Amino acid sequence: MHSTQARHVTVAAHRESVRRLLAPLRTPDRIEMLPLLAALGRGLAADVVAPLDLPPFANSQMDGFAIRSADVPDGGTELTVVAPVAAGAAPPELAAGTAAPIMTGAMLPAGADAVVPIEQADPAAFPLPGVPATVRLPAAPARNFVRDAGSDIRTGELALTAGTCLGPGQLGLLAALGYTEVAVYQALRVLLVTTGDEVVEPGRPLGAGKIYDSNATLLEASMRQAGLDVTRTGVSTDRPEELAALLGRHLADIDLIVTTGGVSKGAYEVVRQAMEGHRVDFFGVAMQPGGPQGIGTFEGVPVLGFPGNPVSCLVSFEMFLRPALGDLFGSPAPRPAVTARLAGALTSPAGKHQVRRGTVLPDGTVRLEGGSGSHLVSALAHSNALIQVPEGTGALAEGAEVEVWML
Amino acid sequence: MHSTQARHVTVAAHRESVRRLLAPLRTPDRIEMLPLLAALGRGLAADVVAPLDLPPFANSQMDGFAIRSADVPDGGTELTVVAPVAAGAAPPELAAGTAAPIMTGAMLPAGADAVVPIEQADPAAFPLPGVPATVRLPAAPARNFVRDAGSDIRTGELALTAGTCLGPGQLGLLAALGYTEVAVYQALRVLLVTTGDEVVEPGRPLGAGKIYDSNATLLEASMRQAGLDVTRTGVSTDRPEELAALLGRHLADIDLIVTTGGVSKGAYEVVRQAMEGHRVDFFGVAMQPGGPQGIGTFEGVPVLGFPGNPVSCLVSFEMFLRPALGDLFGSPAPRPAVTARLAGALTSPAGKHQVRRGTVLPDGTVRLEGGSGSHLVSALAHSNALIQVPEGTGALAEGAEVEVWML
Repeated sequence: MHSTQARHVTVAAHRESVRRLLAPLRTPDRIEMLPLLAALGRGLAADVVAPLDLPPFANSQMDGFAIRSADVPDGGTELTVVAPVAAGAAPPELAAGTAAPIMTGAMLPAGADAVVPIEQADPAAFPLPGVPATVRLPAAPARNFVRDAGSDIRTGELALTAGTCLGPGQLGLLAALGYTEVAVYQALRVLLVTTGDEVVEPGRPLGAGKIYDSNATLLEASMRQAGLDVTRTGVSTDRPEELAALLGRHLADIDLIVTTGGVSKGAYEVVRQAMEGHRVDFFGVAMQPGGPQGIGTFEGVPVLGFPGNPVSCLVSFEMFLRPALGDLFGSPAPRPAVTARLAGALTSPAGKHQVRRGTVLPDGTVRLEGGSGSHLVSALAHSNALIQVPEGTGALAEGAEVEVWML
Repeated sequence: MHSTQARHVTVAAHRESVRRLLAPLRTPDRIEMLPLLAALGRGLAADVVAPLDLPPFANSQMDGFAIRSADVPDGGTELTVVAPVAAGAAPPELAAGTAAPIMTGAMLPAGADAVVPIEQADPAAFPLPGVPATVRLPAAPARNFVRDAGSDIRTGELALTAGTCLGPGQLGLLAALGYTEVAVYQALRVLLVTTGDEVVEPGRPLGAGKIYDSNATLLEASMRQAGLDVTRTGVSTDRPEELAALLGRHLADIDLIVTTGGVSKGAYEVVRQAMEGHRVDFFGVAMQPGGPQGIGTFEGVPVLGFPGNPVSCLVSFEMFLRPALGDLFGSPAPRPAVTARLAGALTSPAGKHQVRRGTVLPDGTVRLEGGSGSHLVSALAHSNALIQVPEGTGALAEGAEVEVWML
């Protein structure tokens, strides 16, 4: 990678560069077995095959009577009621000419092939257990209100594919299959360093020309939600040798360095300067905001240099790092991409992919929140979506359909 | 609440009942101050007003030269270069007829009212500091590439409204405003009890007629994602006195009981039986799946009785408990509701609100995953959305627009 060659890489090309930078971290020794709940939000490291049928046995979909369907002619008949089948019981075979009260989820007795719901029985109530009784039932086709064994998934079928992000539904399936643990990728350990002599930790006095550091909070929160293990250094100074020393102290314990600020073409670009002599390139991605980017390795540890404005940081994370993590490690899940109609017109630099912030409304429109400025952190806080305006699009009218990513 | 009156309540009415059940928990003593990152995913307990302007001062949007716009006539002029303004510095007033190199984010000197980007300067590079130099600059209008103080938010404006769910963007705004802590509602403590003699803990041998408990994992994972503090009891038996005793042991430490199973009209309905003599009603909600529901209080502690099938549990949580929590405590955030076109036809019981599982695809369609059966946990695990089919709709054709909630 040379900065001169790569001066205006596309969003897709830079995302692929980030994916390649992190791909070597996907090693077998980073796979761990975790109890199901501890794996919430992690990515599945290996395919999971169903060790049993779901449901494991044919069972009743309703409270009613289990019957042999051939016993009941059109027009119905009277059957002798036998012992009820509770959920969890292993019932005896159903004798011909009898009906067994059966509860939802209970195992269908051998011989039975249909269930008549209690509401269709006469009387429409279960007799007291132990008291001889008959019941009049209408005819029912075979498999009526029966959930067949394996009708959800069969033994040996692929239940979940490696790379799946484990949410409640996926963990619920693993539990239903009898699993207590699951193989997942370990969380990557990220060192998060915000830079800038203008940046002050929240809670301290704010001198003239200074701003509070929102990047560290914005990115740490985003990274935690994405399942990363974040170490935050506090604000580094604008002195390159201090930044390099800071990074050096953490190298043994981290998988990735993410910096903010100091990657542009100004006179004081601390991250660029600290990375001199290391395999890190700095260039512009054809994206607004978030154009200036750094990527490479520092003493062998992957580095991503995000720009310094808060919205640029968030957009860099969402457009490059988050998708690469999901692709490689199955976590986080991709942002849902949906289509919405612009509630107002916008303009975009035609040579760049623009990412605007907006609120998707229930009527299918998306309202712009603030302008294109990358410092608009209040507007960002009132958005629920990123609006994607592709390279080559200079303007979009009100009502135009756009792709939006739900935050 | 009487079960006879409430036999077929609507989804909206039951959601409102759940909200009313939990509303008394929104008390001032449940508000706590947390460091920003610890508040990730919590709901804001009080309005937050901006204590300062954002940006706090007028600053440069570009690397370039700060000028007095009146100094440069149409056609441009040569100006004397003065000391550069770094980000974080408090510069002296800009003398008339001079230009100050200024970095992105640096404070605009008093007297300056515009910035000319470095790319438009001649020469298009900053002179070495301390070396006398001039620069030729084109004319620029006042406020050119200047970010005005307060252009994102002004001192005294409402920054965040009580009830906002605090994600990365909201926490980033609080940091930008200098806050280190935030007032949020405490997490509700939920006792999660799965019932059923047919239900076996994953990892144990599975006898005939038995199924593994997926409800506890599915719901605990959903509840944790929603910010609840979950205590899980393991599977309770189908003996009402044992269930009542189990609940009694936990009452002092919990805010809400959620049970699964035992709420229907079968012969063995353990939750209904355990709640006899308590102020808990059981009835049908006009919804498929998840119709049978229980709601009330057990020894003064709110109780929700969800039905026993996994999909019914999840749908109950998503349709009733999750929205009520978000409405009352600001957390979790609502599911994004979007519109999609059905990739296949479906039928629905006209008298019920049906919730189907599906996958929203990038082309704006949603594919049904499995049928309507509430036991289809594998199909659920392959879905990313809940498809909402309103009461009164008996069938929808392929291509019909539906509301879907992204999971």
